[in-house]
Order: sequence, then C-alpha cells, then structure tokens
Amino acid sequence: MQNIIKAFNLNIDLAVEAHDLLRGEKDIEVSGVTEEVTNLEHIKVTTITILNEAGANEMGRPMGTYITIEAPPLKIKDPYVNSEITEAMKGSLVPLFNNYLSSNDTVLLIGLGNWHATADALGPKFIEYSPITRHYHEHAPEALVEGMRPTCGIAPGVLGITGLETFEVIKGIVEKVKPGLVIAVDALAAQNVDRIGTTIQISNTGIKPGAGVGNNREALTEEGLGVPVIAIGCPTIVNASIIAGQAIKKFCLNTGAMYDNLRARDAIRDILSFFGGSLGVTPQEIDEIIENAAHIIAVGVGNALFPHVSEEQLELYAN
Amino acid sequence: MQNIIKAFNLNIDLAVEAHDLLRGEKDIEVSGVTEEVTNLEHIKVTTITILNEAGANEMGRPMGTYITIEAPPLKIKDPYVNSEITEAMKGSLVPLFNNYLSSNDTVLLIGLGNWHATADALGPKFIEYSPITRHYHEHAPEALVEGMRPTCGIAPGVLGITGLETFEVIKGIVEKVKPGLVIAVDALAAQNVDRIGTTIQISNTGIKPGAGVGNNREALTEEGLGVPVIAIGCPTIVNASIIAGQAIKKFCLNTGAMYDNLRARDAIRDILSFFGGSLGVTPQEIDEIIENAAHIIAVGVGNALFPHVSEEQLELYAN
Amino acid sequence: MQNIIKAFNLNIDLAVEAHDLLRGEKDIEVSGVTEEVTNLEHIKVTTITILNEAGANEMGRPMGTYITIEAPPLKIKDPYVNSEITEAMKGSLVPLFNNYLSSNDTVLLIGLGNWHATADALGPKFIEYSPITRHYHEHAPEALVEGMRPTCGIAPGVLGITGLETFEVIKGIVEKVKPGLVIAVDALAAQNVDRIGTTIQISNTGIKPGAGVGNNREALTEEGLGVPVIAIGCPTIVNASIIAGQAIKKFCLNTGAMYDNLRARDAIRDILSFFGGSLGVTPQEIDEIIENAAHIIAVGVGNALFPHVSEEQLELYAN
Amino acid sequence: MQNIIKAFNLNIDLAVEAHDLLRGEKDIEVSGVTEEVTNLEHIKVTTITILNEAGANEMGRPMGTYITIEAPPLKIKDPYVNSEITEAMKGSLVPLFNNYLSSNDTVLLIGLGNWHATADALGPKFIEYSPITRHYHEHAPEALVEGMRPTCGIAPGVLGITGLETFEVIKGIVEKVKPGLVIAVDALAAQNVDRIGTTIQISNTGIKPGAGVGNNREALTEEGLGVPVIAIGCPTIVNASIIAGQAIKKFCLNTGAMYDNLRARDAIRDILSFFGGSLGVTPQEIDEIIENAAHIIAVGVGNALFPHVSEEQLELYAN
Repeated sequence: MQNIIKAFNLNIDLAVEAHDLLRGEKDIEVSGVTEEVTNLEHIKVTTITILNEAGANEMGRPMGTYITIEAPPLKIKDPYVNSEITEAMKGSLVPLFNNYLSSNDTVLLIGLGNWHATADALGPKFIEYSPITRHYHEHAPEALVEGMRPTCGIAPGVLGITGLETFEVIKGIVEKVKPGLVIAVDALAAQNVDRIGTTIQISNTGIKPGAGVGNNREALTEEGLGVPVIAIGCPTIVNASIIAGQAIKKFCLNTGAMYDNLRARDAIRDILSFFGGSLGVTPQEIDEIIENAAHIIAVGVGNALFPHVSEEQLELYAN
Repeated sequence: MQNIIKAFNLNIDLAVEAHDLLRGEKDIEVSGVTEEVTNLEHIKVTTITILNEAGANEMGRPMGTYITIEAPPLKIKDPYVNSEITEAMKGSLVPLFNNYLSSNDTVLLIGLGNWHATADALGPKFIEYSPITRHYHEHAPEALVEGMRPTCGIAPGVLGITGLETFEVIKGIVEKVKPGLVIAVDALAAQNVDRIGTTIQISNTGIKPGAGVGNNREALTEEGLGVPVIAIGCPTIVNASIIAGQAIKKFCLNTGAMYDNLRARDAIRDILSFFGGSLGVTPQEIDEIIENAAHIIAVGVGNALFPHVSEEQLELYAN
Repeated sequence: MQNIIKAFNLNIDLAVEAHDLLRGEKDIEVSGVTEEVTNLEHIKVTTITILNEAGANEMGRPMGTYITIEAPPLKIKDPYVNSEITEAMKGSLVPLFNNYLSSNDTVLLIGLGNWHATADALGPKFIEYSPITRHYHEHAPEALVEGMRPTCGIAPGVLGITGLETFEVIKGIVEKVKPGLVIAVDALAAQNVDRIGTTIQISNTGIKPGAGVGNNREALTEEGLGVPVIAIGCPTIVNASIIAGQAIKKFCLNTGAMYDNLRARDAIRDILSFFGGSLGVTPQEIDEIIENAAHIIAVGVGNALFPHVSEEQLELYAN
Repeated sequence: MQNIIKAFNLNIDLAVEAHDLLRGEKDIEVSGVTEEVTNLEHIKVTTITILNEAGANEMGRPMGTYITIEAPPLKIKDPYVNSEITEAMKGSLVPLFNNYLSSNDTVLLIGLGNWHATADALGPKFIEYSPITRHYHEHAPEALVEGMRPTCGIAPGVLGITGLETFEVIKGIVEKVKPGLVIAVDALAAQNVDRIGTTIQISNTGIKPGAGVGNNREALTEEGLGVPVIAIGCPTIVNASIIAGQAIKKFCLNTGAMYDNLRARDAIRDILSFFGGSLGVTPQEIDEIIENAAHIIAVGVGNALFPHVSEEQLELYAN
C-alpha cells in the first residue's frame, strides 16, 4: 500500500501501521525503532519507540514514544472493554505526565478538527467531555474537590472555517496561559476500517493539525510551542483510495494477476476523479462511534490527570 | 458492477444507473423501458418510463416514471446551477401534482432517514426547510398568503431508533390526516461518487424505506397507503464495495488481467470484512453537501406546491 | 396568584401547586381530594388523589393519581439526589405499570414538545435517552438481554412545526402498534422558579399537549387513545406574568399596600404587552437543566419498565 | 428601575436605556452626552455620543459612539424590515471601518458567549454566518472574488466551559494575527422584552465579556488589545428582577400606592431567591429569534466589510 499512499500523497497517521508497512515490505527489523506488545484480556497495547534520526527517517515521523491501544472491532460499546481501555490509557499517560508535570501545573487540552464535519469532530467532542477546572482554581477554589489540578480546554476549529492557523491560536493561548503541558486530541485516518473507533494512539511527539492535507503547516510540538505536547488520536476514516488499492492488490494475490502499482493508481484515479484524496470510507454508525470514542478518550485522560478523583466527580466538571 | 451489487446484496437506488447497467451489459435496449434526455444549460434531465411488467422485472423496480436531474459535480453551491435545478424540479413535479391533487388537498411531506446519522439525514432536513401550513388553514387562515395549500410534514425516524416501522407510523397518520398526496424524501446510495449531492431522482412509484438493508419491509406506495406517493431522493453515499469493485475492474481493463467477478467479491470481502455492506464512501464535505441538497429539494418541492408564492414568502412558513 | 393565572389564561400544570392554591385561598381541605407526603433523605414525594367529580372540578383536572417528586433546588446534579429520584420514580411507576401491563405488552414512549425550542425539548430528549427494544423483539431477539420488554418511542413534534395535531399522530400509531401502555413526557410550567428541573410529576390521567396555549386540543387520554396513558412532566419554565404577579403581591404584603388583582393584571399587561402569555422565566443554565432532567426521567422510567436489567445494559439500547 | 438595577448588581447593556433612565430620573439633559435620532421607514436609528469623562461617569460606560438600531417587535422576520436593518448597519459601520482600516488589513471577528446556552449563543452563531476569507488570501487567492478583504473569526467560548479568560484567548490571537480591527458580537440584556431580537447596538468602545456577572474581568478594548474594537450587541434576555420591579412600580403608579425601592428589592429577592441574578425572561420563540438576529448581524457586518460584493457571493464564504 505504501506506493498507493505516496501516489495519492496520503499520510500514515498510525505509527503501528507505518511500522507494519516497513517491516512487511523489507521483511526485516527497522533500525532505530523498537516495538513492544502487551496483550490484555480484550485489548492489545503496542509501544513503538523511535530511538534516533535513522528510525525517524524510516518511519516518517519524529523521535519519541508511540503507544497504541487496540480494542476488538464491534465491541467498542462493551463496558468491560471500555474500562480496560481507559485503564490502559491511564497506565500509559501517568508516566508521561509525571515526566512533564508538577502537581499545580496547568494543563491545556486541545480538541483539533472541525465540529461541523462528523468524522472530524472527535477533538471538539473530547473537549466537551473533559473536566475543566482552571477557573475554579482562580475564582472559586472552594468548589473543587481535592486532587483537582487546573485544566483548561479549547477546540480552535480548522483553518477552513476560522481563517486562523491552529498553530497561531494555540501558540497565542500558550503564551498567555503558560501551561505545563498541552494534550491535543485529533481524528486520524487509518488503512483498515476495523480500526475506526477502536484504536487509540498516544505519543509524546506533538501533532501536525490536518497533516493529511499535505502542506507545510506548523506543527504543535514542544519545539514550536515551548511546552511539551502529548498527542492522542483515534482513526475515524479510511481514505477511499486505500480501500480501492487494497482490493486491487488482494484480487491480484488471489488470482495470480500481476500487481502494478502505477496502473493501480491510475485505475483508482479514474474512478475517484473529482473528489480525489478527500473521499473517506466510514461505517454507517460513524456518528455514534465518534461520540463513544471521544467519551472514552476524555475518561482516560481525566483518570490520568486526576488519579485520585472518581469518574462521577470528574463528570461534574465537564460541560 | 451488477454482479458485485448482487454479491453484496446491494440496491441500485437510481433508475438511470440501473438502466445504464442493463444496457451496458446487454448492449441492447431494454424492452418495456423508454428513456428521454434533455440537456439544459448546466444540468441534464433524464426521464425513464417503465411501461410494463417486463420492464419492471428487468429494472428491478415498479412501473412508473423516474425523472433524474443531474448537476455537474463540485458546482452545487453555484446559485445559477441551483436555480436551474429547482426550476427543473418544478417543471417535473407540477404535472405530477396536477395528476393527483386538487387545489385544497392536503399534502403530507415525509422525511425518511435517521437525523442522528449524517449521511442519512437528508429527509429530516428536507422537512425542516419545507413550508408547513396546514395548522394555519385550521387555526389562523388569516395568517396565510394567497395560494398556500395545506401541507404537513414529519420525519418518522428509523426502526433502529424508534422501534417503529416507518410504514406503521405513516399509514397511521395517513388514515387520520387523509392527504391527497404523500411526498417522501430519502437519502440514496449511488454507484458513482460524483453523484453525491448532485443527482436528484423523482418518481411516482413510492419508496421502500431503508431498502438497502435488504428486507421485506413494507413500502410506502399508493397500494399500501391508499394515496399516491411521490418519492424524491438524492445520493449521499456510495457503498465501499462498489468503489472497490470498480477499482478492480478498471485495473483489469487497464492491465489486461482477466476480471473474475467471484474473486473480486472475495477480495472485497476480505478487506471490508466486519462492517460489510454498511461501509459508505463520502466526500469530506458531506455534512455541508447534505445541508445544501436538502435545501434545494425543499425549494424545488415548495415552488411546485405553491407556484404562485415567492421563495421569500415560503421561507416564512418553514421551521 | 390564582386570579393572575385566570387573568392571563394560564394553566397550572402541577397538581401540588393547584392543591396548595386551593387550600391557601380557602384555608380548608378540598373535598374529594387526598394528599399524602413522604419525606426521604433528600427528596419529598407527594401523592394527590382526586377521588370524585367534585374534586376534579375544584382541582381543574381529571380524577386519578398525581405523584410529585421534589428535589432540593441547585442540588440536581448531585449523584445521590439523582439516584434517590430515580428510585422514587421506580417505586411510584412499578405499581402503576403492574395495573396496566402484562410482561409482553409493548410500551409506546412519547416525547411531547418542540425539539427546536430549548425549554420545550424535554420530551424529545427523554426519547433519545430511553431504551428502545421493539425492533429487536421482531427482527433480532437474540440481541436482547433477559427481561427486556418491547418498547418503542417517538417525538411527534408540535403542531406549529409539523402541521399535525399530536393526537392525530399518536392515535394513528396506537392503532397500528397496539401498545399496552402509553407513557408521555412533557415540559411543564410551574409557578415557582425553584421547581425548574427539580420537580417531577407522574399521573395516570393522560395529558393535553401544549395545554397552556389554551385551546380545545384533544387530550392524550385512555378515553381518546383506547389505551392507558401515564403522563410524566417536569417544569422547565415559569410564566413571566406569574413572577410579576408574585412580586406585586409580596410587595403589598411587605408594605401594607392594598393588593388589587385587576390592577395587578393591568400593570403586568402594560409591561409584558406584546409577547403576552408566551414570556417565560428560566435560569441561565436551562439547557443543561433540561439535559439533566430528561436523563433522570429516562433512567427512572427505564428502571421501572425493566426492573431486572442494569442501568449500563439499558444504556446500550438507547440512542 | 435604576435602583433595582443597582440593588441586584445588574448591568445596563444598552446605552439608549442608560440614557433614558438618566434623563427620566433627572428630567434634564445629561452633560457630556449627545443623542441624535433618525426615523426610517420601519426602523429608528439613535446615535449617542459620550463626549467626555463627565458623560462617561454619568452613563457608566466609556467615551465613544453608541449607535442603536431599533426595529418594531414581532416584525423581525419581515424581509423589508430585515433589509432596512442591514442597510442601516452598513451605513453606520462603513464610516467606522474607514476610520480604522486600510483595504488589505485583516479583520478579526469574535463571537462572544456560550454556544451551549441558547440565549447566549448569539456571538457563536454570528461567526457561523460570517464570510471568512483570510485563508484564501494566503493559500488560494484565485478562489476569491474581487473586493474580498481578509477576515478570520473565532468563538472563544466562556470561562465556565473553557477555563480560559476570553481576554487571554483573544489577546493571544491578536498578537499572532495582527488584525487592523476587531469586531466582537455578544448577546445583551435589556430592560424591556420588546427589545429582544429587535435592537442592535454598535459601539466603538470595546466590550467586557460576561459583564453582567459583575467582576473585574479584563475588557476587549483598544487599550487592552492594542487594536481598535467595534462591539455589536443585541438583547436576547431581560433579567427577571427587572420585570418584577417594573410590575411593582407600574402597580404603584396605577393604584397610587407608594413605591419604595428597598421594599421592592426585598419582595423580588423573596420570590426569586435561589437563582438570583441569573433568571432571565425570554419569549418562547427565543431559539428562532437568536438564529434570525445572528443572521441579520452577519449580513450587516458582511455588507459593510465587503461593500462591493453581493450577498449571494458572501454566503459562499460562510460556514
């Protein structure tokens, strides 16, 4: 698929998929990259670490840690699976937070994406479900239960509807609010429909808003913002070109026909013409899936930020 | 594609696509079916008439008239294209209305589909944009401008969220309200992404709600409801299997590999597995496209129902 | 206040308020009416029974049972108060259900009111949060956990936006679906702002949709629909005339000025003129209050309809 | 009413109301303040200028120009009234813009208020309806029609849901984007229900977000932001205490009872107790009124910012 991905100028948002593609094609380990897998009762946690520049070049993303939590498809509303996911998120996030945060530091939550476009609304919905407490610290500390650190949150929208680069908005707020940590949540594109709403990726490397659109937009990184950035994403869409490319490849494999990447690309271009890279594949239940994924991520982040506060208490601070 | 469509138990919602497939495969005219095409400045209007049972069997849909209005893709927000579409709708609908309606008959508008699922919300949004006047006739006739016939409208939801068959709800209401005509609007599936939000189909044959799900649900037809039913639909989605099948076929055509329908089906099943028939392909701008299409259809229907009332006036009666 | 209420042609939706007014003015018990109060830890449950026609005339509402659950204001998001309310609802509803329902009867849930008007959206939101199972019984019984009776639900909208009388829609559906019981939820008007979102009234006497508007609209009653109707309501608004009237009366009481009902009415008319009876008083947090009240009522009704199913399980059947 | 307003610590958002109160009580002209009234066909335009510190003290607001456009109540959906309002807005805004802006300057639009609270959502809805073009200037200038200056827009939310002071967010963005002008739209409180959705105030003095809550929050002013700020507001609510106070005063006037401000205040406190200052009076149609007002303001501002572009064209740049 990598060639289709390049041909259509698509991004591979998930480090696990990028890693699988690299290893699949070369059938060797990728130098400068380690992967560690833990299987829990229902879910699987994979930690990929990119150790050096060589690994970063191969993987097409910055050095750092990429943790992926994978739940079985179609099981995502199961309460047991849900609580295993939020526990795993807490387990992954708490050590990251401890690296960066002292207990009174403010945390700035950012919900990337467009609240007017269903499949892109994951980030804004995450903000809605997250506990926001910074104003109590300043104006009504007595309304806080113990263990509530200051959090604030904003969904800055997307360039196409605000006319503002996300980086401009966030950089401006960071300079005023001076948080100890930024946590940015965004909808991702995957290469496999089973991942939609079932895979969560956590990384300590920052994030490029709307990276898929393929431009030199400034990234939300520690380097750019001057404060550590944890990025959390969940696939909500698979590009239609990928599906079409996979179908051709699979058909060739099954029939023995010779796969030819350039001609696959041309065939796909012919049928997807006008809308090109912007055609996405989603399950019919996408609105509900995104609602659910945003809620799980908010609970996982909330539990990790406020480890000694109950979920019921946290909900009282959400909007 | 017809074989992929059968393999995945999909419906061909658009009569023009069904007709093209039949003619394409057999390269002959289909008996019992006539087609007439008019090209206007920006748009194309195709009238397919299924004349007899033989034609109905071939086409897989009831005898009657199917009018399709096709606008160029990506041009749908152009005000000139828009007004050409609503004019064409008026031109097509007025003669149909004249067949069925006398001037004081009530018209019941129905917005089929699920308002919680973006790509299925076309019908409910159509109801929001449509002028509703029946209550003025009964309670405040002085608030009506001249030429306003009685209209009422409901979006009955879908079985999966109400537990009610659409037919049960509508049949019940029809028995109480006794309209002279039912106009039902629904989101359709197409076989070509360029049709999303750009093709409008009008037929006088009724409609099967959620027909795509493949069951023996009772249809909204004159036979079932006891009142003529005009169905209006607009594609909002292409099934992902169709896209994958087209890509394989195109690839075979381009490379000379032998296309094999069963193996194409198997390849597609392998990659789309879990979500099967429910995976849809939509452009990123789908929320906006549906908003726009619902509005155009509401204006077109409104202009045809109230030919002597201005659009500004009509808007005052919408919600 | 009763005179202001009559002067402005307002309704007293809550039986407890009607009863208090009657007793307050006459300082005697009302013949044909009994009242029983139970104080629980945080909440108060009042059961008013109208025993005969004399009582019904005095109280201005039909014979039957009116159960009112009152929570302290401003405490409504407290999880303990919430679960005490849903428990009390279950305790009140289960005996009513047992009177009417055998275990396989279908229950039709109705969310009255206008989903486009914040303070009137209680009923539609109740439907969203309620478990809907009838379609599983018919199409996929294996997807049901034990103890799930068939439920279906609809929010028919209001005359002003559908052009359909609520009675027409519901009567039609009842004739098709033949439920054993109808449960109708609606937003009420109270006479005291403290009741907004904190008082729940349950009655076995049916309900008049949009009763406040003062017309002869047909009521949703056992007599009209041919099936028992349980009505559940919660105040979301206080009419502005009531607030103004109370202020005048209180001022007179405090200052010794002579209260004069006609002149109070005239003073209120002068300042509220244009919008007249349609001006409502609500707290700033009304959107959130209604969200919360709809959720509590859905949980209370769900627990009573499915007494052996856990809340987590029930949520999986909601939309 | 001024005493009730002080007693409940309320703000007078409209300069015309503040001016009327001052002149009413003192029955003399207010020094340092001029007022000029123009009556058009359906609407009335009042320009109040606060000339010096003495006037500012009396009026309780900064020196500057306050233009108020008043449409007749209940007529607000009339297309003729609408276009008279947007014309008057253009007439008032163009000279203000010409004071501050050269043709290539960026304009930052700000929608103040809480999109989750109906009566406070005017600002966020204004942003949705406004043309946004800055990203085209930077990334796709060929997609712009002539005469489109760069605009960007954000609805920063409110402290209670973001944990961020509006000033912090906007100051940060202003420092990055360096606009030539900020236009901030907010929902106001009036003292008369007839003003809800029918009065628009334009001033060149900036605005204090959530001013009514009575705190020392930093204002969005030229002094604070370093860029001129035009504030546009429209009443969406009347505080319930005002209505109650007016009723008492009117009653006293009509009956000859002696009005006593302290006792009026106490009477009002007794009946509004819990929710205090946060109880608002709105017409039932408030959701629709706000939709309409946001649209009119967006059209008025758009016409003034892009005087040579048609409304249809402008709509294509809105979200």
